[in-house]
Amino acid sequence: MRSGLIHLTEKGYSSTGLDDVLSHAQVTKGSFYHYFDSKAAFGQALIDAYQTYFAQQLDAAFDDRARAPLDRLRAFADQAEAGMARHDFRRGCLIGNLGQEMGTLPEDFRGQLQAVLHDWQERTALCLQEAKACGDLPSDMDCDALAAFFWTGWEGAVLRAKLDRNAAPLRAFSRLFFTLISRQGAAS
Amino acid sequence: MRSGLIHLTEKGYSSTGLDDVLSHAQVTKGSFYHYFDSKAAFGQALIDAYQTYFAQQLDAAFDDRARAPLDRLRAFADQAEAGMARHDFRRGCLIGNLGQEMGTLPEDFRGQLQAVLHDWQERTALCLQEAKACGDLPSDMDCDALAAFFWTGWEGAVLRAKLDRNAAPLRAFSRLFFTLISRQGAAS
Repeated sequence: MRSGLIHLTEKGYSSTGLDDVLSHAQVTKGSFYHYFDSKAAFGQALIDAYQTYFAQQLDAAFDDRARAPLDRLRAFADQAEAGMARHDFRRGCLIGNLGQEMGTLPEDFRGQLQAVLHDWQERTALCLQEAKACGDLPSDMDCDALAAFFWTGWEGAVLRAKLDRNAAPLRAFSRLFFTLISRQGAAS
Repeated sequence: MRSGLIHLTEKGYSSTGLDDVLSHAQVTKGSFYHYFDSKAAFGQALIDAYQTYFAQQLDAAFDDRARAPLDRLRAFADQAEAGMARHDFRRGCLIGNLGQEMGTLPEDFRGQLQAVLHDWQERTALCLQEAKACGDLPSDMDCDALAAFFWTGWEGAVLRAKLDRNAAPLRAFSRLFFTLISRQGAAS
């Protein structure tokens, strides 16, 4: 699973041969097929594992009551940046990578990828609603729409960070996102 | 070239075999290699052609003096949405697709893709500066940063639109982008 995640976040699904994953993990084809019916089934299991890991990361950031709600989202962004930096900005987001590749993936992947993004957006919307309740966002802010906006932009920023091989696109997106929404607070 | 663009915007570079492009275009390998040394050289020519086409699209939108500057950017977004709708949201942005695939592309592609995105950002920043000069953006707005923010988010939105196979992600991103920056104007 770990070898699969490394390959898919770095090179994508279509460019990753099962042989590369298995030889990197020192696992035989026989054992692989004991657990998975196909490369597609493996891909779907990787999405599930990634989602479980990521949901924990989001919960860890968003449940930190010591921070103001918007600072929790900032903390998540910093943490995600540190994660990319650890791998020298070579590995992107599994969900963003596969989303971009959807034109060549088995059709089952579509709903699964959409569900993951919706889950992240829902968790983020709850954090934004807390920010609204604290008066850190204007009372007419649509937190679901803002959470979707954050994730759309963040996936774009991860793509750029991989292209530029540095943190600048993540920081630039995050800085302006928080500037724009905080000024909103000031304006309301 | 057209067949290459169709394949690369739909399926990406790695999943596209030269044979698919050539048989779709009814072109022989011999003629292909008369014009291009390799698949990589073809890919780079496609990026150039896409950039030329897109720069014209941006100029057409941004030079339309009948519209207020921010309405020109809105017009561009509407036009890009119509472009995706024409192909049933199966084709994404060549630059975003290749950016996501950078982990497996020839290293020469990186600088070329970055240069295209910078060019789009610069054109967009000029439009935003006009908006600032009209008082439609606050006087302390960093238009270069805002243009980069727009393109980061827009590439993310194109990815989502391809995943969802509809215009909703483009519209949602664009609506909130303009709401956030216009309220800025109201707040300044």
